Amino acid sequence: MTDFTPQMATDFVHRAVPAIGRLGVVVEAISPGAVDLRVPIEGNANHMGTMYAGALFALAELPGGLIPLAVLEPGRYTPIVTALEIQFLAAARTDVTLSARMDPQDLRALGAHVDAEGRADFTLELVGRDAEGRTVITSTGHYQLRPNRG
Amino acid sequence: MTDFTPQMATDFVHRAVPAIGRLGVVVEAISPGAVDLRVPIEGNANHMGTMYAGALFALAELPGGLIPLAVLEPGRYTPIVTALEIQFLAAARTDVTLSARMDPQDLRALGAHVDAEGRADFTLELVGRDAEGRTVITSTGHYQLRPNRG
Repeated sequence: MTDFTPQMATDFVHRAVPAIGRLGVVVEAISPGAVDLRVPIEGNANHMGTMYAGALFALAELPGGLIPLAVLEPGRYTPIVTALEIQFLAAARTDVTLSARMDPQDLRALGAHVDAEGRADFTLELVGRDAEGRTVITSTGHYQLRPNRG
Repeated sequence: MTDFTPQMATDFVHRAVPAIGRLGVVVEAISPGAVDLRVPIEGNANHMGTMYAGALFALAELPGGLIPLAVLEPGRYTPIVTALEIQFLAAARTDVTLSARMDPQDLRALGAHVDAEGRADFTLELVGRDAEGRTVITSTGHYQLRPNRG
């Protein structure tokens, strides 16, 4: 998946999880160990004109499922979210973007750990920002990488 | 809102937050200090046939926004989610339900606190279960009740 375009990655996510497609989360950039995401205010505003908390959750949760697939052999591992803490620090009235980074070396080590031990845990601490660069959410996602039985 | 039917409450939520409507979360029962919710597996399954984490987040987050409105004067207060911790304990392959309870007396005290101090914080610890009664999520939601400026 290292030569995936952002559009291909977006299509992959929306096919795999149609509910994320309905929330409109898009992959803006993807490369080994890095993914940039956006969630639109359009369709996700509540009656106060601010973004629904669940759309921000979607933005915060997705990187843990996506970022391993840009380094490790796709189809070999399945990332599972086991817990997520999210802080809503300001109301968003614009699209919100979020960048996730993991050292590709660390991701390969996770894959090797799964091969040896059956599973491997990892954590992502992320920040979502509105169009003015204001922090609207911070999050800590806890994930487990598992072998794909298929 | 104490004489709201579940259908009226569902329609209210879907109008106020269309994204919750697209996730299909429905109010199954509502009375002062109590709300029962359901999120359907239909439309929310991922490629593994299990429920998308974001649909479970929607289920866990909504009670904090809804339960005060069934006791306090609607339109007078706005509940805001400030943080949420959610644990994904088992994959759900069925609809998931969740019941939230708060003592109406405590809710009225929160309203009085907002009137006196400008805001009031409250917390909801919840459990979501699948059709077999298995716990699929636990969550702690942190909310702030604010006066409605309007």
